[in-house]
Amino acid sequence: MVAENQWIKIKAPATVANMVCGFDILGFAVNNPYDEMGMRWMTRAQNEPSIVIINIDDYQLPTDPEKNVAGAALLAFLEEYEEKEKDNAVKIKLEVKINKLIKPGSGVGSSAASSAGAVVGANYLLGNVFSKDDLVRFAMNGEKLASGVKHADNIAPCIFGGVTLVRSIFPLEVVALPSPQLYVTIVHPQIEVRTSDARSILRQQVLLKDAIKQWGNIAGLVAGLMKSDYDLIGRSLEDVIIEPVRSILIPGFDDLKKVCKQAGALGGGISGSGPSIFMLSKTKEIAVAVEKEMNQLYDGIGLPHHTYVTTINQAGVEIIA
Amino acid sequence: MVAENQWIKIKAPATVANMVCGFDILGFAVNNPYDEMGMRWMTRAQNEPSIVIINIDDYQLPTDPEKNVAGAALLAFLEEYEEKEKDNAVKIKLEVKINKLIKPGSGVGSSAASSAGAVVGANYLLGNVFSKDDLVRFAMNGEKLASGVKHADNIAPCIFGGVTLVRSIFPLEVVALPSPQLYVTIVHPQIEVRTSDARSILRQQVLLKDAIKQWGNIAGLVAGLMKSDYDLIGRSLEDVIIEPVRSILIPGFDDLKKVCKQAGALGGGISGSGPSIFMLSKTKEIAVAVEKEMNQLYDGIGLPHHTYVTTINQAGVEIIA
Repeated sequence: MVAENQWIKIKAPATVANMVCGFDILGFAVNNPYDEMGMRWMTRAQNEPSIVIINIDDYQLPTDPEKNVAGAALLAFLEEYEEKEKDNAVKIKLEVKINKLIKPGSGVGSSAASSAGAVVGANYLLGNVFSKDDLVRFAMNGEKLASGVKHADNIAPCIFGGVTLVRSIFPLEVVALPSPQLYVTIVHPQIEVRTSDARSILRQQVLLKDAIKQWGNIAGLVAGLMKSDYDLIGRSLEDVIIEPVRSILIPGFDDLKKVCKQAGALGGGISGSGPSIFMLSKTKEIAVAVEKEMNQLYDGIGLPHHTYVTTINQAGVEIIA
Repeated sequence: MVAENQWIKIKAPATVANMVCGFDILGFAVNNPYDEMGMRWMTRAQNEPSIVIINIDDYQLPTDPEKNVAGAALLAFLEEYEEKEKDNAVKIKLEVKINKLIKPGSGVGSSAASSAGAVVGANYLLGNVFSKDDLVRFAMNGEKLASGVKHADNIAPCIFGGVTLVRSIFPLEVVALPSPQLYVTIVHPQIEVRTSDARSILRQQVLLKDAIKQWGNIAGLVAGLMKSDYDLIGRSLEDVIIEPVRSILIPGFDDLKKVCKQAGALGGGISGSGPSIFMLSKTKEIAVAVEKEMNQLYDGIGLPHHTYVTTINQAGVEIIA
């Protein structure tokens, strides 16, 4: 257990959910961008709130714990912590400073980074009493607040690092998938796609023949990652169910995918529910060439955007001080 | 190239398609039962048929090559062979003796064994001019004849051995999946389920939420096989889409599954389109205990049946003499 009042510093990575064909089950963490957070615990006096949130960025996110994703995750954490430690007289108050470097709404797991960072930090402060699976469970309450659905495809890679499979949500089962070195290029076009909108446009029924294609690709992607077979990874990065619907919300999507693959990318697609798009490449040179194509295309249509060239983050949320 | 008129002997294994959650994409070969075949090639005189089929079992399957699954596969084989060897003056005639030890209609890839055995045999006779992928492509013509659909989920494991993933049919891509030692118990209740009927009762649309569950399990099963994680394999052997519909055609299915799992099986389900049911186990002792449960249950309801306790066949079709 970290001493009372002592601040720790936390780094919570951005994450790419779905990984093209693996809607709601696959995701991976990246080394850039990431959120920075500070946390400490104190003994809670009577009538004091259990969670205090201080935003040190300019996004003006809510500080009421019940309306803040990190707060919602920490409330779930503390509820189970106090149940577990009910014979312990000390009541806990958690103070969290959040510096969001991952822009909210960008589609690279901004809310997941806050939720996951907060619960990993709290767990570290209080002596690592919970497992990673438990932490994913708590952090999903932040996702529920952000998108209306308890999904773990950003939370799981954010906490575990690497590529993760959420085999099942209830009961929760996260499977870490080994992967070869992969470079990731991300472009964030500055448009707004709300996760709830991106979910509501999906059809609730899919054709069995499309589902079969999709699960062939998912099985191929998992096998490709575990065999370090880059070509198989590339061929499997195809989504016949979600992308055809969601990509309509993202200007230039089809062209962008085409030029990136021509530049040598293995493949890629919408990151989470968008609007960010990611591409995987075998080498840094290709990943940089892909970034150039992305810049060129969005500069050409005058759409403001940010790009990142990074790698898969294997560590997940880290306590860095 | 094997000398003209010289007989070779072929062993073509039974296969289990779908592997519970992997409808139309996953399958594996088993060491028992298997078909025995003999084959030789001769120079074809004018007006002679290119393929002669001799059944040496009592199933009275058609011997007209166009109506026999091995014949349909060999016709596709020869067509491409003669195109490939068009400068070669020798015309080929293939003679095939088939001794079916895998009962037709049992749901363990009886037609696939004939088609796959025939094309692997022909390829061996003529100097292995085609790749395994090519052979799968030819053999699928037999499946088309048998069930109306060019599917490869029995053909692929029959030719490659082990556990296979058919990531894509057009273009064909078969991925060999490493797997740990697994024991297989199969029960064949003596009822008829026609593959075409088993296909026609399936709904053409599925709920997206069910598809997500299914692809979580498929990803889990592939990861479990490749990590040799028996528990993950067991948890992933769940089918929320096909089994609930098809199992209605198989008497006692739910009870059988329950007692087999209680006896220690990792899991299992319908083999292909049924009526056979398979169970996977970690040890031979459990596989035998599972067989006992199967016998007890079907003896109890007076349903004639056969059982097999076997292992995953890693070799696929073999030339044994």
